Amino acid sequence: MPDSAVNPQLNADGELHHLLSLDGLPRAIIERILLTADSFISVGSREVKSVPLLRGRSVFNLFFENSTRTRTTFEIAAKRLSADVFNLNIAASSATKGESLLDTINNLTAMQADLFVVRHSQGGAPHLIASHVAPHVHVINAGDGRHAHPTQGLLDIYTIRHYKRAFDALSVAVVGDILHSRVARSDLHALRAVGVPDVRAVGPLTLLPDGLESLGVRVFTSLEQGIRDADVVIMLRLQSERMNGALLPSASEYFRKYGLTPEALRAAKPDCIVMHPGPMNRGVEIDSRVADGAHSVILPQVTFGIAVRMAVLSIAASSARFQ
Amino acid sequence: MPDSAVNPQLNADGELHHLLSLDGLPRAIIERILLTADSFISVGSREVKSVPLLRGRSVFNLFFENSTRTRTTFEIAAKRLSADVFNLNIAASSATKGESLLDTINNLTAMQADLFVVRHSQGGAPHLIASHVAPHVHVINAGDGRHAHPTQGLLDIYTIRHYKRAFDALSVAVVGDILHSRVARSDLHALRAVGVPDVRAVGPLTLLPDGLESLGVRVFTSLEQGIRDADVVIMLRLQSERMNGALLPSASEYFRKYGLTPEALRAAKPDCIVMHPGPMNRGVEIDSRVADGAHSVILPQVTFGIAVRMAVLSIAASSARFQ
Amino acid sequence: MPDSAVNPQLNADGELHHLLSLDGLPRAIIERILLTADSFISVGSREVKSVPLLRGRSVFNLFFENSTRTRTTFEIAAKRLSADVFNLNIAASSATKGESLLDTINNLTAMQADLFVVRHSQGGAPHLIASHVAPHVHVINAGDGRHAHPTQGLLDIYTIRHYKRAFDALSVAVVGDILHSRVARSDLHALRAVGVPDVRAVGPLTLLPDGLESLGVRVFTSLEQGIRDADVVIMLRLQSERMNGALLPSASEYFRKYGLTPEALRAAKPDCIVMHPGPMNRGVEIDSRVADGAHSVILPQVTFGIAVRMAVLSIAASSARFQ
Repeated sequence: MPDSAVNPQLNADGELHHLLSLDGLPRAIIERILLTADSFISVGSREVKSVPLLRGRSVFNLFFENSTRTRTTFEIAAKRLSADVFNLNIAASSATKGESLLDTINNLTAMQADLFVVRHSQGGAPHLIASHVAPHVHVINAGDGRHAHPTQGLLDIYTIRHYKRAFDALSVAVVGDILHSRVARSDLHALRAVGVPDVRAVGPLTLLPDGLESLGVRVFTSLEQGIRDADVVIMLRLQSERMNGALLPSASEYFRKYGLTPEALRAAKPDCIVMHPGPMNRGVEIDSRVADGAHSVILPQVTFGIAVRMAVLSIAASSARFQ
Repeated sequence: MPDSAVNPQLNADGELHHLLSLDGLPRAIIERILLTADSFISVGSREVKSVPLLRGRSVFNLFFENSTRTRTTFEIAAKRLSADVFNLNIAASSATKGESLLDTINNLTAMQADLFVVRHSQGGAPHLIASHVAPHVHVINAGDGRHAHPTQGLLDIYTIRHYKRAFDALSVAVVGDILHSRVARSDLHALRAVGVPDVRAVGPLTLLPDGLESLGVRVFTSLEQGIRDADVVIMLRLQSERMNGALLPSASEYFRKYGLTPEALRAAKPDCIVMHPGPMNRGVEIDSRVADGAHSVILPQVTFGIAVRMAVLSIAASSARFQ
Repeated sequence: MPDSAVNPQLNADGELHHLLSLDGLPRAIIERILLTADSFISVGSREVKSVPLLRGRSVFNLFFENSTRTRTTFEIAAKRLSADVFNLNIAASSATKGESLLDTINNLTAMQADLFVVRHSQGGAPHLIASHVAPHVHVINAGDGRHAHPTQGLLDIYTIRHYKRAFDALSVAVVGDILHSRVARSDLHALRAVGVPDVRAVGPLTLLPDGLESLGVRVFTSLEQGIRDADVVIMLRLQSERMNGALLPSASEYFRKYGLTPEALRAAKPDCIVMHPGPMNRGVEIDSRVADGAHSVILPQVTFGIAVRMAVLSIAASSARFQ
């Protein structure tokens, strides 16, 4: 049975055709993405920042949910690969004309799209699109609901690998609102896939989903215990809509218990790195002294994110046709 | 008397300088557009989708009325011709600063624009602009009020020619809200121009304009009679603002009488094709079984539309200066 | 002491690194910008309008305040230099997610930006950004609050030099709401820097700031006296929010006293030129007969503005790194 039967992201030869989720993505593909990203790191620091790999290809940024930052990183990645990029803010367009998602996708496909980069507020929308597009079209999930944000997961492990070299002896803690975070979900899958032996989820009980243990994740409700001797601490953004909701008392109370201060960080390893997917809420989930401090690799994450997205786009686009 | 005296779209040599309307456009020019589009069809299916015909030219998409879909098709067409494309959502900008349309156009012309692609909610705005721009600037109407949508008319006859080869023995029915539709108006002019002998307009009396007979169009209020033995059925989008207005009882009543179902379609020829300019209201003017069925050429219309717009842009841009 | 210690726009070699304000910008740098713009004037009128000077560089248009017109001129200038251009409407994005300005800038810098073009409603924002970015990043002020609009000032003196050749015997009047105008401020600095001997500010007392005399500017409250024998009359846009405010009686009263009519213009020199930064309020600060008349060079200003912005972008980008 070909992999594509069990994993809709792969073609019949087991190559990456779409990137929808890191759940079940073979380690060999993840490693190929990381290696390919290595080769693109230097592109961004050259004066001429482009390579002709996707010259003449059409990349459509389909953002059904607004995200200037993520959209921009994909636009940069695609343009550095010399693709033609079309930004479509769909929320503001056909959706309001009552057209169905699949009609919109069919129409854009008929405009001879090669790649769709999809951000959607509903989990599963990129899968639905991928199951529907023509065989030569590739779908990259740029974040869907609470489900997945696979390029963020990939850039996070790329960052960890950059600073820690090997994954096989690391302790990595993901801290915050695990329950609602697609970043957390993709990080946990990525960390497991590359063989990190000690993966931890840290947060208040109300923001921890069930079933983490079955993923091999250790669960902590104490920040100090959760990051003790960690090599890597990944802080999650606390969505403002949680801050005065039923699940949390208040932002300041959250900061007191889960905000990463220099004092709290002493529990982690002395050479630990601190990551954050951005945008940060300074003084809520992270103290500015940590965000701007010596352990922070938050800005390198952004730089690596461009290279990782270039890798994903170019690898998917080069896969043979789905069969 | 040169053609330009009677038709502001043509230069002194009778070449296409602006594309404002299909009304009165010589058949030779329409045929040149169709032939040129043929040569661009293959471009879209190549891996490198661009040709250098408009390299270094500046195309301004001036959308005074929002239309992500149409704007995107022109953006794709212009980029595949290697033009530099600038998207200006004018509704949100100078208009609010009280600047006049002509001052806006003068300013953009002074930025050394080569082509303006204009969408405007008021009929005649592209003509006004064309009468005002510098001689080297070309204006393409991308839909103005209820007046015209000439590239849609052209892509519709391109589609018909693709599937039916010759125009001279065809019956073509345009069905729906003829009264308010710029697509219908452009289709009727295009069908007449290329010599379709039997052109029909089908819809409720309240949505049929006067004077269709003088265009050589046969008028029907019965769907069954209107599409009987038709080779081509062009369904129009029913604007949602009509659905609960004074002109129509309701969307479901409309569907019952004018919605194109497989059963209704049996009246047309067995090898008929069904077209729709999009976005579709499934279950209002068209049944999903028809939209997705064997007769539908709705998605090929979109693909052909890119090639037709590339043809229009490149032909207009290559015309000699207006005199 | 290197110039950079006193002027944050210059690098240690005294070259232009950022363009933030014309206040204190050495005349030699202004003249280099004008000369470089000369070389770009021809580019815009060629069929292929691009030069490869910024090929592969990433220019970010950061518009914290909406301005389609100014954003478009910078986008055109950057694309004609073959840069990759990314338009970020920040007002609508991260700002709403509570991220700080500097976090936004840090993030964009980490995406390997080369130039930031910044428009902000608060005076000083571009300076703050310039003081914060990595040494290889250049910041161009595209208008900040009431403070400065240096590329407008530069294109205004470029326009004057084009029509009047030398600056050293000119009388130039700036007319209107001097108090709230960043254009006025940049014009006054530019005119002084290039050695215009007679610079005048004309307007109602309530719209004239204190301290103009210390800049060497002569102040007039009478339009007739203010433009008498002027070689150049620069009209400012009257912001609509002033028109029915406490500072002015009404738009029609303003027009009666300060609107530039053909009759009023007779006070100036017969070969005077009339300028306006746009968008114009016809019938408020300027009569249409003047706006469209023989003295008006308002549209050439726009054309020159592209060349001047190309000059600024390319000169800043070629400066050695800040030390």
